[in-house]
Amino acid sequence: MLKTKASSPAVLILAAGLGKRMRSPLPKVLHEIGGSPLLFHILRKVRDVAPDSSVAVVVGYGREQVEARVRGAEEFSRMKISFVHQTEQRGTGHAARCAMDSPWGEAVLKAKSPVLVLPGDLPLLSQELVTQMLAPFGRTDAMRLLTCALPDPTGYGRIVRRGTSGPVLRIVEEKDATEREKELREVAASIYLFQAAFMRYALQRLKNKNAQGEYYLTDLVAAAAGAKKRIDVLKWKPADDLRGVNDPWELALAGRLLNERTVRRVSLGGVKIIDPSNTWIDGTVRVEEGAVIHPGAILAGATVVAAGAVIGPRVVLKDVTVGKDATIKTGTVAEASVIGEKAQVGPYAHLRPESLVGEAAKIGNFVELKKARIGAHTSVAHLSYLGDAEVGRDVNIGCGFVTCNFDGRIIDGKRKHRTIIEDEVFMGSDCQTVAPVRVGRGAYVASGSTITEDVESEALAIARCRQVNKPGVARRLRGK
Amino acid sequence: MLKTKASSPAVLILAAGLGKRMRSPLPKVLHEIGGSPLLFHILRKVRDVAPDSSVAVVVGYGREQVEARVRGAEEFSRMKISFVHQTEQRGTGHAARCAMDSPWGEAVLKAKSPVLVLPGDLPLLSQELVTQMLAPFGRTDAMRLLTCALPDPTGYGRIVRRGTSGPVLRIVEEKDATEREKELREVAASIYLFQAAFMRYALQRLKNKNAQGEYYLTDLVAAAAGAKKRIDVLKWKPADDLRGVNDPWELALAGRLLNERTVRRVSLGGVKIIDPSNTWIDGTVRVEEGAVIHPGAILAGATVVAAGAVIGPRVVLKDVTVGKDATIKTGTVAEASVIGEKAQVGPYAHLRPESLVGEAAKIGNFVELKKARIGAHTSVAHLSYLGDAEVGRDVNIGCGFVTCNFDGRIIDGKRKHRTIIEDEVFMGSDCQTVAPVRVGRGAYVASGSTITEDVESEALAIARCRQVNKPGVARRLRGK
Amino acid sequence: MLKTKASSPAVLILAAGLGKRMRSPLPKVLHEIGGSPLLFHILRKVRDVAPDSSVAVVVGYGREQVEARVRGAEEFSRMKISFVHQTEQRGTGHAARCAMDSPWGEAVLKAKSPVLVLPGDLPLLSQELVTQMLAPFGRTDAMRLLTCALPDPTGYGRIVRRGTSGPVLRIVEEKDATEREKELREVAASIYLFQAAFMRYALQRLKNKNAQGEYYLTDLVAAAAGAKKRIDVLKWKPADDLRGVNDPWELALAGRLLNERTVRRVSLGGVKIIDPSNTWIDGTVRVEEGAVIHPGAILAGATVVAAGAVIGPRVVLKDVTVGKDATIKTGTVAEASVIGEKAQVGPYAHLRPESLVGEAAKIGNFVELKKARIGAHTSVAHLSYLGDAEVGRDVNIGCGFVTCNFDGRIIDGKRKHRTIIEDEVFMGSDCQTVAPVRVGRGAYVASGSTITEDVESEALAIARCRQVNKPGVARRLRGK
Repeated sequence: MLKTKASSPAVLILAAGLGKRMRSPLPKVLHEIGGSPLLFHILRKVRDVAPDSSVAVVVGYGREQVEARVRGAEEFSRMKISFVHQTEQRGTGHAARCAMDSPWGEAVLKAKSPVLVLPGDLPLLSQELVTQMLAPFGRTDAMRLLTCALPDPTGYGRIVRRGTSGPVLRIVEEKDATEREKELREVAASIYLFQAAFMRYALQRLKNKNAQGEYYLTDLVAAAAGAKKRIDVLKWKPADDLRGVNDPWELALAGRLLNERTVRRVSLGGVKIIDPSNTWIDGTVRVEEGAVIHPGAILAGATVVAAGAVIGPRVVLKDVTVGKDATIKTGTVAEASVIGEKAQVGPYAHLRPESLVGEAAKIGNFVELKKARIGAHTSVAHLSYLGDAEVGRDVNIGCGFVTCNFDGRIIDGKRKHRTIIEDEVFMGSDCQTVAPVRVGRGAYVASGSTITEDVESEALAIARCRQVNKPGVARRLRGK
Repeated sequence: MLKTKASSPAVLILAAGLGKRMRSPLPKVLHEIGGSPLLFHILRKVRDVAPDSSVAVVVGYGREQVEARVRGAEEFSRMKISFVHQTEQRGTGHAARCAMDSPWGEAVLKAKSPVLVLPGDLPLLSQELVTQMLAPFGRTDAMRLLTCALPDPTGYGRIVRRGTSGPVLRIVEEKDATEREKELREVAASIYLFQAAFMRYALQRLKNKNAQGEYYLTDLVAAAAGAKKRIDVLKWKPADDLRGVNDPWELALAGRLLNERTVRRVSLGGVKIIDPSNTWIDGTVRVEEGAVIHPGAILAGATVVAAGAVIGPRVVLKDVTVGKDATIKTGTVAEASVIGEKAQVGPYAHLRPESLVGEAAKIGNFVELKKARIGAHTSVAHLSYLGDAEVGRDVNIGCGFVTCNFDGRIIDGKRKHRTIIEDEVFMGSDCQTVAPVRVGRGAYVASGSTITEDVESEALAIARCRQVNKPGVARRLRGK
Repeated sequence: MLKTKASSPAVLILAAGLGKRMRSPLPKVLHEIGGSPLLFHILRKVRDVAPDSSVAVVVGYGREQVEARVRGAEEFSRMKISFVHQTEQRGTGHAARCAMDSPWGEAVLKAKSPVLVLPGDLPLLSQELVTQMLAPFGRTDAMRLLTCALPDPTGYGRIVRRGTSGPVLRIVEEKDATEREKELREVAASIYLFQAAFMRYALQRLKNKNAQGEYYLTDLVAAAAGAKKRIDVLKWKPADDLRGVNDPWELALAGRLLNERTVRRVSLGGVKIIDPSNTWIDGTVRVEEGAVIHPGAILAGATVVAAGAVIGPRVVLKDVTVGKDATIKTGTVAEASVIGEKAQVGPYAHLRPESLVGEAAKIGNFVELKKARIGAHTSVAHLSYLGDAEVGRDVNIGCGFVTCNFDGRIIDGKRKHRTIIEDEVFMGSDCQTVAPVRVGRGAYVASGSTITEDVESEALAIARCRQVNKPGVARRLRGK
């Protein structure tokens, strides 16, 4: 983290593009990988390296959405972020000029802050790259330029130098390049650091005489060279850092790479990951040392997995807290729920939001919970639905139990009604409780009963018919 | 697509081989990747590039199966496809001769069509390759040969030229090659274009004096060179195009590559694919712009996914139509069904064939449908089975509902009977309907009821016992 | 397999390390990939190549666990395995000396066996490598050294030779290397074969004057060179063989590579594997020719899949026997169970231990079995739980059936009671049987019945209420 308050940098993020090739109405920088918009990945790196920097995000297409999304993110609430509106799409040079001409730009100029320019669609930028770009300028530098030597430079702006390795003269876009220039392998990556004054001066003099008819930010290189100003070059090794996202396929590939980084980080923290290519972990998830994650797991959002917990194959967790030594078995799906220590859940359990599974409780296969609180050491082992329910501790819920939380009636303005099952109740199999209803502590409900009235503590409740056997009738039925 | 009717080409596909290393009784070219037999992938490329060509497929091992499969495929019904029977496996030269000596060959000779020869086990051939192979001959060309320079040429027939880069003299098979010849890196890919007359002439003079005792089609190169005829060479960059399938492992790898191509194509059409390495899409599937596909989804057969639909993790769809903005949640399995716009299905729902989910209907977890038609805005939220059922709109089906469509009786010659539930019915939890039965519009069935008789519209049906509470008995039961 | 009894080799496996970077209390060599500890993978290669060798495993950290695990493995029960305790972690040279000074070492010296030294954390060692390392010594060789030329040798001990390709002089560890030595690309892989007498002699003279203050086994190279003894070098091509496991990420990567090997081997045996990157097969699993495995399957432990069986997507099997032509559908989870020929199971069935599915039986979706024996041609098609049950042949179990095997009572000292359903029973939907109970052959149980008493053969059992329809009441209920 940089701490020099004196020259805390300014950061300009270009996020106005439509992203036509994305074939989507969503602004390009809001497309997500690893559970967060592309823009967030950039902002996080800026926050981690230079938390005090003054950030401007140039927005255009879908700007309300972009602004709303950033402003709504708690994680960026302490950053100084301004939004600059680029009303027309007239190129990166024009975008930068909009920023420098804005109140944000005025303040930056006044503070003489160096200005780091980052594209909003490079979500894999590393902290190391941002740190090195923000290193202090040499005394005579007007700008710093990041370049990269690519085996196949097709599509990129080429770095034209004096001779083969002399000072940088200019950047030429592919569309404006001669055949000879196209053979150059050193390319620009749209990442710059500028002296604020030079930047503004040069932007105001930018021309759009090129194949696209746009104002290119890249032309500031020629402007600096022409004015005999010094250009510092940061040569970067080809890396995923510079992988841009221009279409849904590149988005998907960037998502895989980001995930691999996250999985590797989690793994090195002492988490056993059985198959690194088949595990998805959002950057926002926390997994403690000693946990185990089986193939196909998807951990998303604010999920936390405690030490010793086992996440089985194909488990999908979003915003779920998994307690110490809990076991989540194959295919369980859970959202916005809390699973206690040593609890066992699944296979194929479904925890809908606001469910809470107590310590050492057992939720078995084909069980659905919704706004259900299950006490410690309680067992709901098979094929049941508990919605809007409060279940005590040491309760045994048989197979095929249903809380009838909705029967079409509106009571006290509510459509769904609560079921309360107190500690140590024994609920037989294939029972239903028609809510609102309470089954008292230690009560026993006979299998096959439909419970419509409260059951007092320690009572036996039964609501079923006696069995009648009719000898020989089966043979007759089969005859039909 | 080539349009010169004058010389519309002939295409000869070699598909007679047993494929011993496949270790399977299935003819090699019928092994499937991406949901279709290897042979179909070749035929599609021929159809796309030269739909009017006269195609001969040389068949031998399992020829009835191969013929039946191709003839049964609607997608090839407009192509002119003949089958030539190679009764013995005596080499590629013999296979080609069988074809040229057949009525198909007679017609080709008469029409003076150039003959493109393709192996039936190169399923990744690109359209580009077929197009370039079919480019018109130079005036003096007797044949065209596709070659490829491989870093490791082991196993392939080597191209022997005069000097290092002079005209091609012959192809030597690995087994017949000298040590010196084995060092050659330019190999043949078993893809040729022949002048029909030269081809037949040369095939009739082919000898089988080689390590295998077989007639090699590759020897036509030496025949052309020996007769001072011109051989055109199409040099191809090493690519998946030429990846052959000779054993189950190569089949698996080819399948992965084909899938990657399909996923990339779908993605670039504006579909958000979260993990490109964990998504399987048959080439026959259509996904519209704006859909989202989560990791592990398998989309097969004639499946169509409309714009805005979300296919959740591990969803498996075969021949399913998913409507606009529908959401299919984790692990749902569906076959030969239709899911309406804005419907929500899953997680872990199972739609067996002939199910139809209406607009904005909800099919929840652990629900099985079979030949069930569910009306618009109807909810079947949990743990239910609806088979042979017709359910109206705005119906609420509680948890644990079962249509008893089979009770051992045969009625009107049918073992399974229909259940009809009309609009706006409220079906409580844990109910069963014993079919044939009808529940009238707006009726209400109390939880826990077994419905054996029709329920008239607006009636309340109830078939359960009153609850009895026996104070203190639970304590006694526990004592036992 | 080597068969020369005369000089049957000794094998020394270094397995004492803590594996600090693993961030786990488990001894490093007990971390598992492919269903077995790292150490087991090494031991298997030794067993396969030299079954009669005298093996010593040097243990230190967690030695009781390591010993117990190896001694408990039936597969190694015929090998001669000793354990040598290294009480302090003082380097590989010290570990080897502990072994040579032990009774095992005395016996090895006496027998003049060559000693193969293998690290316990190279789980991908190939049989070929072990075989070549164990080739007989030349007459004057004191030791054999495995080396490998790496593009990036960082972290490895470098091979210092006289000149660039003269005899080996010594190995220098990265930490002790000069800048010049660091440029050497030929590295040591910690795999040696020693003449026993030389080994012991040199180990006793080993010094620990190095950056780590440890005794290095690598210094035996300099010792041999210094004593003018001949060092045989086995140059190995860079390969996964030598991939070590030092942290959880390397463990995960090694696991993937091992799995790819296993999947490839299974595939080449005639098994159709749809996606080789998404199939997990333990080395201990057996799959017969003609089986098909869909994406995401996990086959673990002693699982056997017979010919013609189809393992659907995401099926998880552990210690399960799948019969010929059986079909296991999507997402089914089974453990320690037997599935008969032509049986159909799933999707989303759950077979808990000791379940047995008879020939051509059907276990459908959302069905759980536990200690349940299901007869041939019997159908349990949907949403049921059968625990502690014996079900005959040709039985039809309706949807939503539950064996109430536990009702809180202890009978004859048992908490769970048995349910017996004899041949040809028809069990209607939504029935429960309260165990212990028997339903006799050919009996018929009406839908919705709770069966608490035995049903005699051919009887109809019914335990439900008559249906009452109350006209117009539904409208009133809605009004509420």
